[in-house]
Amino acid sequence: MAGVASITLVGNALLVSIQDDVTDTDIIELQDTLSQRIACEEGVRGVVLDISALEIVDTFVGRVIAQLAGIARLLDAQTYVVGMRPAVAVTLVELGMYLPESRTALSLTHALAQLKRG
Amino acid sequence: MAGVASITLVGNALLVSIQDDVTDTDIIELQDTLSQRIACEEGVRGVVLDISALEIVDTFVGRVIAQLAGIARLLDAQTYVVGMRPAVAVTLVELGMYLPESRTALSLTHALAQLKRG
Repeated sequence: MAGVASITLVGNALLVSIQDDVTDTDIIELQDTLSQRIACEEGVRGVVLDISALEIVDTFVGRVIAQLAGIARLLDAQTYVVGMRPAVAVTLVELGMYLPESRTALSLTHALAQLKRG
Repeated sequence: MAGVASITLVGNALLVSIQDDVTDTDIIELQDTLSQRIACEEGVRGVVLDISALEIVDTFVGRVIAQLAGIARLLDAQTYVVGMRPAVAVTLVELGMYLPESRTALSLTHALAQLKRG
């Protein structure tokens, strides 16, 4: 997973950067690590998925985002997607992926502020 | 149903523990008993499903949780799932079971506090 997705604790949220060249294997590893950290670390209330590195998306990446958000919600954490490019938003909606489990925020600062408010 | 799932009233919620070896027959009995108690007992506002005994899940258990939450919602009670292990969350999402009818809470205390707030 090195270089593909790193998980950093920022405030009460786990920040995950999704890279362009993410693979199936990376995602399985990321799901495991992320779910462990949400469940086992004290005070984690949210997950922030930074997708600013993604210039294009397909159904695979859309499903990755949806699944990570779904896992986080089942473990009582709110997911925020930040850094979404306009073209990515258009494509996701065209693919029918409205990401109902996640909320979007303009930036990490906005996401952390919203998480703080609860 | 003895030993498989017990229903206890805690505050304004019915606490149900789902055991690992739950069978189809147990579930039908549990659905009947739970729905009766939600409808007939005074002041029941929620159902707390404790699944900490589950180390693995399959579609059967996922469907059981979804159905119990669905029944509770139709009877105007909010369902909280507590004690979910990280691996269980990952599996449920991979099976496409996002449990939209239920909310998750870290512990029984959290679930009861959220139910109190309404």
